Amino acid sequence: MNVAPSAVVATEPVSSKGVVAAGAYVDGRRVANIAVDEASSWRSRPGHVVWIGLYEPDMALLTSVQQQFNLHDLAIADANHAHQRPKIDQYGDALFIVARTAQLVGGSIAFGETHLFVGEGYLVSVRHGASTSYTPVRERCESCPRALARGEDYILYAILDFIVDNYSPVLETIQEEVEAMEERVLAGGITRAQIQRLYLLRRDLLRLRNAVGPLVEVCRRLEHDNLPMVRPTMQPLFRDVTDHVRTVQEQIDSLREVLAFAFEASLLVGQAQETAVSKKLASWLAIIAVPTAIAGIYGMNFRNMPELQWEYGYFAVLGVILIACTALFWRFRHVGWL
Amino acid sequence: MNVAPSAVVATEPVSSKGVVAAGAYVDGRRVANIAVDEASSWRSRPGHVVWIGLYEPDMALLTSVQQQFNLHDLAIADANHAHQRPKIDQYGDALFIVARTAQLVGGSIAFGETHLFVGEGYLVSVRHGASTSYTPVRERCESCPRALARGEDYILYAILDFIVDNYSPVLETIQEEVEAMEERVLAGGITRAQIQRLYLLRRDLLRLRNAVGPLVEVCRRLEHDNLPMVRPTMQPLFRDVTDHVRTVQEQIDSLREVLAFAFEASLLVGQAQETAVSKKLASWLAIIAVPTAIAGIYGMNFRNMPELQWEYGYFAVLGVILIACTALFWRFRHVGWL
Amino acid sequence: MNVAPSAVVATEPVSSKGVVAAGAYVDGRRVANIAVDEASSWRSRPGHVVWIGLYEPDMALLTSVQQQFNLHDLAIADANHAHQRPKIDQYGDALFIVARTAQLVGGSIAFGETHLFVGEGYLVSVRHGASTSYTPVRERCESCPRALARGEDYILYAILDFIVDNYSPVLETIQEEVEAMEERVLAGGITRAQIQRLYLLRRDLLRLRNAVGPLVEVCRRLEHDNLPMVRPTMQPLFRDVTDHVRTVQEQIDSLREVLAFAFEASLLVGQAQETAVSKKLASWLAIIAVPTAIAGIYGMNFRNMPELQWEYGYFAVLGVILIACTALFWRFRHVGWL
Amino acid sequence: MNVAPSAVVATEPVSSKGVVAAGAYVDGRRVANIAVDEASSWRSRPGHVVWIGLYEPDMALLTSVQQQFNLHDLAIADANHAHQRPKIDQYGDALFIVARTAQLVGGSIAFGETHLFVGEGYLVSVRHGASTSYTPVRERCESCPRALARGEDYILYAILDFIVDNYSPVLETIQEEVEAMEERVLAGGITRAQIQRLYLLRRDLLRLRNAVGPLVEVCRRLEHDNLPMVRPTMQPLFRDVTDHVRTVQEQIDSLREVLAFAFEASLLVGQAQETAVSKKLASWLAIIAVPTAIAGIYGMNFRNMPELQWEYGYFAVLGVILIACTALFWRFRHVGWL
Amino acid sequence: MNVAPSAVVATEPVSSKGVVAAGAYVDGRRVANIAVDEASSWRSRPGHVVWIGLYEPDMALLTSVQQQFNLHDLAIADANHAHQRPKIDQYGDALFIVARTAQLVGGSIAFGETHLFVGEGYLVSVRHGASTSYTPVRERCESCPRALARGEDYILYAILDFIVDNYSPVLETIQEEVEAMEERVLAGGITRAQIQRLYLLRRDLLRLRNAVGPLVEVCRRLEHDNLPMVRPTMQPLFRDVTDHVRTVQEQIDSLREVLAFAFEASLLVGQAQETAVSKKLASWLAIIAVPTAIAGIYGMNFRNMPELQWEYGYFAVLGVILIACTALFWRFRHVGWL
Repeated sequence: MNVAPSAVVATEPVSSKGVVAAGAYVDGRRVANIAVDEASSWRSRPGHVVWIGLYEPDMALLTSVQQQFNLHDLAIADANHAHQRPKIDQYGDALFIVARTAQLVGGSIAFGETHLFVGEGYLVSVRHGASTSYTPVRERCESCPRALARGEDYILYAILDFIVDNYSPVLETIQEEVEAMEERVLAGGITRAQIQRLYLLRRDLLRLRNAVGPLVEVCRRLEHDNLPMVRPTMQPLFRDVTDHVRTVQEQIDSLREVLAFAFEASLLVGQAQETAVSKKLASWLAIIAVPTAIAGIYGMNFRNMPELQWEYGYFAVLGVILIACTALFWRFRHVGWL
Repeated sequence: MNVAPSAVVATEPVSSKGVVAAGAYVDGRRVANIAVDEASSWRSRPGHVVWIGLYEPDMALLTSVQQQFNLHDLAIADANHAHQRPKIDQYGDALFIVARTAQLVGGSIAFGETHLFVGEGYLVSVRHGASTSYTPVRERCESCPRALARGEDYILYAILDFIVDNYSPVLETIQEEVEAMEERVLAGGITRAQIQRLYLLRRDLLRLRNAVGPLVEVCRRLEHDNLPMVRPTMQPLFRDVTDHVRTVQEQIDSLREVLAFAFEASLLVGQAQETAVSKKLASWLAIIAVPTAIAGIYGMNFRNMPELQWEYGYFAVLGVILIACTALFWRFRHVGWL
Repeated sequence: MNVAPSAVVATEPVSSKGVVAAGAYVDGRRVANIAVDEASSWRSRPGHVVWIGLYEPDMALLTSVQQQFNLHDLAIADANHAHQRPKIDQYGDALFIVARTAQLVGGSIAFGETHLFVGEGYLVSVRHGASTSYTPVRERCESCPRALARGEDYILYAILDFIVDNYSPVLETIQEEVEAMEERVLAGGITRAQIQRLYLLRRDLLRLRNAVGPLVEVCRRLEHDNLPMVRPTMQPLFRDVTDHVRTVQEQIDSLREVLAFAFEASLLVGQAQETAVSKKLASWLAIIAVPTAIAGIYGMNFRNMPELQWEYGYFAVLGVILIACTALFWRFRHVGWL
Repeated sequence: MNVAPSAVVATEPVSSKGVVAAGAYVDGRRVANIAVDEASSWRSRPGHVVWIGLYEPDMALLTSVQQQFNLHDLAIADANHAHQRPKIDQYGDALFIVARTAQLVGGSIAFGETHLFVGEGYLVSVRHGASTSYTPVRERCESCPRALARGEDYILYAILDFIVDNYSPVLETIQEEVEAMEERVLAGGITRAQIQRLYLLRRDLLRLRNAVGPLVEVCRRLEHDNLPMVRPTMQPLFRDVTDHVRTVQEQIDSLREVLAFAFEASLLVGQAQETAVSKKLASWLAIIAVPTAIAGIYGMNFRNMPELQWEYGYFAVLGVILIACTALFWRFRHVGWL
Repeated sequence: MNVAPSAVVATEPVSSKGVVAAGAYVDGRRVANIAVDEASSWRSRPGHVVWIGLYEPDMALLTSVQQQFNLHDLAIADANHAHQRPKIDQYGDALFIVARTAQLVGGSIAFGETHLFVGEGYLVSVRHGASTSYTPVRERCESCPRALARGEDYILYAILDFIVDNYSPVLETIQEEVEAMEERVLAGGITRAQIQRLYLLRRDLLRLRNAVGPLVEVCRRLEHDNLPMVRPTMQPLFRDVTDHVRTVQEQIDSLREVLAFAFEASLLVGQAQETAVSKKLASWLAIIAVPTAIAGIYGMNFRNMPELQWEYGYFAVLGVILIACTALFWRFRHVGWL
């Protein structure tokens, strides 16, 4: 099962096999592309670190990985079916970390999951659903051997940092849409399509918050707890990720509040609009009622109605109607009903 | 009171007796179906674990169980009448655990309660109300004697895991309904039947959250507290249940928020609809007012109204009316009122 | 001041005197009905417990009690004027506990206060406002001397349990009313009387929560803190009260949320109703506008209006009007406006 | 700067000077009225306590006080310009306490600030803005020398107790107004003046909560922290103030929630009212449309309209109109639209 | 790179270079204006403190600063690109602090960021975006050498105090605007421009809260944590800043709540207005319907209509119309519809 990573296209994981890349590193340099079932032997050589990337592996592959690194049944069960909350579990001397990834696909957020197994001399990443390949992380790490030489906890940091970084373009796109929408809503009232969009944005942000929120705790534990796989010198790096994910969380919460404000403002704008329509309706009804009422009176068939006999009665009445309507019109305009 | 479990239909507990199943286990294998009043002697044999399942037992049966395992009065009182919050109580060297179960019955959630007594060498489960029988748990455990051989805390884990697993189909059904409803609401405004359904969903979700919320604390204590009945090697299992119940709780909270969003969106949609109706009403009133007013004027009985004598006055007026109405119609359509 | 408790009617305290009952107990049996100013001597006899029940005592009586048991000035001041939050204060080797009681009086909740002084060999209860007499508690305790023999902390438990038990009928009545109301509201829109009832229910539930909420902390401290008057063997009993009061609190919070949901649903129902009225109004206006406009046109007095001379012009116009109105009617019905 | 306190009118502080009262006490009795610049020497005599009350002092006076008691620059800076949050700061062996006072002035709440410096043998109070003079506290303390003899921490307690006591009349007045308003709102809908009043009440309660809320923490620290100036025997007194301020806080929060309920109820009442108006409008329009439409038809000028020639046609039509209108009227009344 | 600070105009940083000011201080007096690349040597002289102020420096300048003071890579990376949350990070024996600054620019709040590096003998401030120059802080410090002589932690205090002080004018301006708006809204209903302004104010306050909120934690850590760069004697100063920033936070939260109240009140006012318009409309429709209906009846062409032949029938009908309209008008005015 020798995989030649140079032949792997980063954005299209070898889905049939499930293994995206697998390498052994010494001093930050890749010394070999390895097969999964050789991993254990490579890992046990002094100074060697094994880094394996999987995409939606089948159970057979997972079982093979489990045997190589002696992973816990429950962690493997979790990694097999997605839909976990972001969390960090410690099994003996191995860490199992779950994170959710987010990508914008066609205007709404698609979520993926990444499961990470970290232990002495190895890191295995398992991706599910919508998520960018970690090939860029691998390339960036390999281009900077001095950093990568720090070991498996550095790789862990690099991947978490990458995940958190990838929230930002999602948030920025949403932010731009929210700003565009708030202008339109405040200017001209909200349409049904915009209500629908606002609703979907709120729902998406809720899901994003659920993805990001528990990650704060994961990062905080990596920074503060005395986990056996994380060397103290790495803590400033994990603190940096914690700060970053907190900033993302704050932005999400702000957007959520802003959307709630926008909902409330829309309600007020809608109410004002409704009142404006009522006022316009009332004004025009009043104006049109004048000729109707007057004409009705002079349409009566009484024998004795002196005005009807006047030479210019008709024109006088026309004049009265015109003056009354004009006066009403200006009055309504003056009080802002028209 | 020898019960032959093989003859018991899983979904229909022997309600007249209250005992669903009672067995003694050695090394994960059932060695005997026992009577409740033999339980104490079986339990005290080395390596033996007694597992008894009750469904809505009467007080006599509960008292018998109490004598066998020397249970605390208060725990028995709790187990006798349901309506407890999920909780975990420690009485001497025995644990008493309360959990709420949920099932979808006819579109709304029906709740049940399960009380668990766990101590050295025994586990007694007491079910009340709407709840699935734990026979599937027993069967699955018996089919895997190596796991069951771990003892009574493994049975406890198996039952809690089963309870939490059973929340998921309930939640999924609600989720689907919410998604179907949100589409309809955003597309066409909300009907009274939908308002009612939304309301009932929110109420049901509130109850579900009340059932699930305190269970997080129960599982967390089983995972972290140094309880005498829970061996340290079982803690990863209980952590798994904790993670699971937290995921369920998060899903419930999300659904609750989404329903709140849907309520707010409905208000906006309803307001927009109301305004649209007002605009339509105003437009048609304006259009119809034109012929009424003009016809009124030429219906006046003045002696001297020159237009009335014109050969084609009538047709001219008809034309004016037609043109005015058409112009208004297009104008209203242009500004989006019609 | 020898009071013969057997002569005291439980529900009507001897308000003129303020002393409802006062007894000395040995091994759970009442050995004497005592006067308040003998209390100190009875209490100091080995194995004796003094239990005194007061109802709205005057300052003289309180001072007498204070001298007997050497109570703290501040506790007596608190007990003299009600309107305290539920709390537990420790003064030297005595406990001072405040709880609020609730009763349904004429459809709304009436609140009372109970102050309890507990120390080595005595318990004094002071009731204020709407509250049931504790005579049933005394009778139940006396009927079970073995339990009562445990001493003053058992009496404390019995009274707190009684207070918490008495919240339940109040809550159940409110629950039933809420359920009856939610059905009516969702079916037919909300009337002003129902809005008023909803409002009052919310206000009452808020007050009930304020009465019950701090009691959780009181019970929790009785269960967990190492208070000198509470023996460790009593802790399961107080844990039971804590569980109970937490259940009550959860029910209150649920009802409060449900009422909030009902408010929001009413708003939606009301909005839907308003829109329905507008649609009906618009439809009928449109239908009635047709004959008015047509009749207006044929009511004009032009010399040359050929239709007027047609033999069946009138009937043709009537027919046109009828057809137009019917068509409109069916159209409006079809789109759900009528 | 000898001030004769007997000549000072309590409610009108000597604002030109800033010193309201200054006395030296031994065993709870005032032994001398002192000048501020003698304070240090009086204070250092054994058993002497100096109590100085200032009202909006100028910087010179504050500096003089600072020199006498060796106070911290920052505390003096705080005391010079008001607008501090309630807080408690410890500077070496001195305490600096800030509290906000509240008074009803013309229907809305006016806030003041009191700064207290407490140390070995002295207490200095500095009042700003709307606040009652502490002369009543001084008089009450002086009338009870045994209590006052306890020293400067007793004075501190007396002043804090007085401040908290003075919140109650403010709250009671607001409570009465809220109750009066809720009745009117639920009975007849809300007027614009009432909306304005509700709004101002909410804003005032918010400010009051901001004044009272941090005071809970101040009192709690005086009760629990081991502050050098507060003797353990004083802790029950400070616990009493804590309880009191917590009760006030609970009342404020309740009122705030009740006002929020009232807002929501008003919205529902307003909506019901709007719908009622629409229904009335629709009903009358329908009733008036009948004669208009019928009369319009018989006002047409067709040559051949048989009914016009009937002897009693006119009266028949009048009758039809009357019957139709009456029928409509009763129908609308029956369905509750009129 | 010798910068002559005397030539630098405080409000216009030397943006091309990025260095606003750089000085070495001994005993609180500036002894030299230094170049950035001499900083390390100046700093290491005993009793010397280096204070450097940068404004949007380029990476080259930052790298130079990093080399002088041996700063951590991550802190430099943070300082290079803004958009950090306020935070305090400790790297070895250096502190890295991020704060957000706020200024009113054209009616809305513009935010800037300040990054501070503090270590033994140096403080470097890096400003980004909208923020006042810290030249006034430098001048004030230099005018008071005794305070400045305390060292780099005093400078840190002075800058933080300055930042927090600068929130106040922003808040005061918003407060004034809110108060002006609340009066207008409650008096005359809300216009669309005001809704927009309310919305923007809420959004700005949300951002301001996000800027200020985490700063409380920063100041609290400076006050309480045993940070190596902050001498214990400085703690009262940082407590003062903490109090100050808490007061600011409380004001922001109050304003946010007040704006939420204003939104709700606007909704009620708007609803009341809508109902008033509906009532007016209904009233005038009723009044105008009377002449229309009556005139319609007497416009019918029945042969036998006795009233038409009456000598004064016309005038009688005019009178009836007048009386009916007047009566209706007064009735509507009486019930408050007009």
